[in-house]
Amino acid sequence: APGSHAEVEEGTALMPRFGADGLVAAVVTDFETGDVVMLAWMNEEALAKTIETGEGWYWSRSRKELWHKGATSGHAQTVKEMRVDCDQDAIWIRVSTAGTGANCHTGRKGCFYRSVPVGQPVSPELKLAFTGDEPLFDPKAVYGDS
Amino acid sequence: APGSHAEVEEGTALMPRFGADGLVAAVVTDFETGDVVMLAWMNEEALAKTIETGEGWYWSRSRKELWHKGATSGHAQTVKEMRVDCDQDAIWIRVSTAGTGANCHTGRKGCFYRSVPVGQPVSPELKLAFTGDEPLFDPKAVYGDS
Repeated sequence: APGSHAEVEEGTALMPRFGADGLVAAVVTDFETGDVVMLAWMNEEALAKTIETGEGWYWSRSRKELWHKGATSGHAQTVKEMRVDCDQDAIWIRVSTAGTGANCHTGRKGCFYRSVPVGQPVSPELKLAFTGDEPLFDPKAVYGDS
Repeated sequence: APGSHAEVEEGTALMPRFGADGLVAAVVTDFETGDVVMLAWMNEEALAKTIETGEGWYWSRSRKELWHKGATSGHAQTVKEMRVDCDQDAIWIRVSTAGTGANCHTGRKGCFYRSVPVGQPVSPELKLAFTGDEPLFDPKAVYGDS
C-alpha cells in the first residue's frame, strides 16, 4: 500500500516524509572531492524546485524563506546526482558549485572546516582544529557587514 | 564572547547548538568510499559518547532512546574523523564499520540506495532508481520480523 513501511523503503515512488517542521535534511557533497560541504534543509517547495531545475534550493531556517543557493553570491549548485534515504526523510545531493566553488556563507568551500578530536571526554580542554580550508571569497563584500 | 557569532563560527571551542528537539544532525560517510551512508541524530549525550569512545552513538527519534550503533547488529562504527559545521548545528563523521560493513537497517552498506531523477517536474511518473546496493545481511535474522 502507498506509504506503507515496505513501499517507503523498497518502492520506487518518491514519498518524502517531511518532519513536524515541514523539512527534510539535505546532505550536500562536492561532486569532485566527495567532501560533505553543507547540511541544509528542504521544504516541499525547495525539494520540488531542486528536482525540476537541477539546482540546489533550500529552506532557510534562520531567514524563514525559500533560498535559491547562489542567487546572491553567484555560487549556484548544479545537482549531478540526487539520492533519497531508506525512510525518505533525508536527501543526499552531489553538486558542482559555480563561481569560486564556495558553498559556505563564511566564504569557504564547505561548512565543515573544523575537526573535533575524538577519544577523550568532552571538557573545556577539547579544542577544535581548523583544517586549513580558507575562504575563497570575502563574505562581507557579497552579503554586507552583518 | 562565548557563544557569539564569531566565536561559534571562527572559534576553537565546541559549542554545539542543539535544536528545539535537543538534537543535531549527524552526517555519516564511509571512510573508504566517501559515500554518505547515514543521516542520523545526536543529542548531547550521544555526541559526548561518540567523542569520548570514538564510536557512533545516536539518538533514535523513532524509539526515543540513546542508540549505540552496532550494539544489536554488530556493526559498530569507528570514528576516523569528526567535523563540526560553521554554526555548530551539524556533525560530520567519517567511519569504518565493523562486521559486514552495513550501516542501514535494511542490511545495506548505506541508506541512500535509491537515486532521484532530476531535471523534470515532480509527478507520479517520477520513479526512484535502485543503485544496486544490495543487503549485506538479513535484517529479519538480526532484528526480528517487525
